[in-house]
Amino acid sequence: MINGIDHIGIAVRSLSAAIPRYERVLGRPCERIETVTHQDVRVAFFEVEGSRIELLEPITEQSPIARFIAKRGEGLHHIALRSSALAVDLARAVEGGCEQLSGVPSGGAHGAQIAFLHPRGMSGVLVELCAPAALAEPGRATDNRSLSIQPTTKNFHE
Amino acid sequence: MINGIDHIGIAVRSLSAAIPRYERVLGRPCERIETVTHQDVRVAFFEVEGSRIELLEPITEQSPIARFIAKRGEGLHHIALRSSALAVDLARAVEGGCEQLSGVPSGGAHGAQIAFLHPRGMSGVLVELCAPAALAEPGRATDNRSLSIQPTTKNFHE
Repeated sequence: MINGIDHIGIAVRSLSAAIPRYERVLGRPCERIETVTHQDVRVAFFEVEGSRIELLEPITEQSPIARFIAKRGEGLHHIALRSSALAVDLARAVEGGCEQLSGVPSGGAHGAQIAFLHPRGMSGVLVELCAPAALAEPGRATDNRSLSIQPTTKNFHE
Repeated sequence: MINGIDHIGIAVRSLSAAIPRYERVLGRPCERIETVTHQDVRVAFFEVEGSRIELLEPITEQSPIARFIAKRGEGLHHIALRSSALAVDLARAVEGGCEQLSGVPSGGAHGAQIAFLHPRGMSGVLVELCAPAALAEPGRATDNRSLSIQPTTKNFHE
């Protein structure tokens, strides 16, 4: 079941330029900054009443975010829907004709399970499904490489 | 005060193609479809636990959404932040260097007050601030043409 918009991911060239502007508009400080090494990004998190806005700054030219910015410029990169049962929600999407994106790790930050749907089936929107660790299905490992649905498409960013 | 992500706006070529896919992924039916004549769009609304996803289909070639799709293709168009005091939140953003976008009506659907911030100050993201009618400031008309802060920039879409 999808039970919320978990976050909105925004590709930015420079966190130091973007953070003050978002702090101003949102009227609150950036909560924290983390480096996500397997995506080659630094991420600034803003909590917004149960959802988050995440600013994503590439730290290498090989980062998917660097490639996105080179192609399209800064801007909205993806939306993430919070799932209470990732395998079920992903299966329903794939059975309906959506394609799961490969080439991205299925283990997110803090033990979350994540999967991506290819933009071409979602009117151009890169959609992440994510199950925070606390919402992960009972008995299921936090790393969802054991999910029965295998990726069917190439990496969106390649 | 910003107290939530009100909605995410997605530009689509065809509601009839996009709605079934989003219904499938979100696991719920489209709540309603409305025509917003002053933007030349038909909008399909999906409620997602206090936020909304809005699919925006242009109904004329002059629609801002038609121009967006012609330039960038389908995809994420804007995010809307829910404001409990639009004039205050807008003033804080503008004082911080954001530019208010002109050329868009300030009265939204259902008596909401809305304003847009230019993407060039927001890392490429078109940001809407919106105060639903129920949250509008006491004594203030639902049409906010009387807001003291005047638009400073040209229409983003022109």
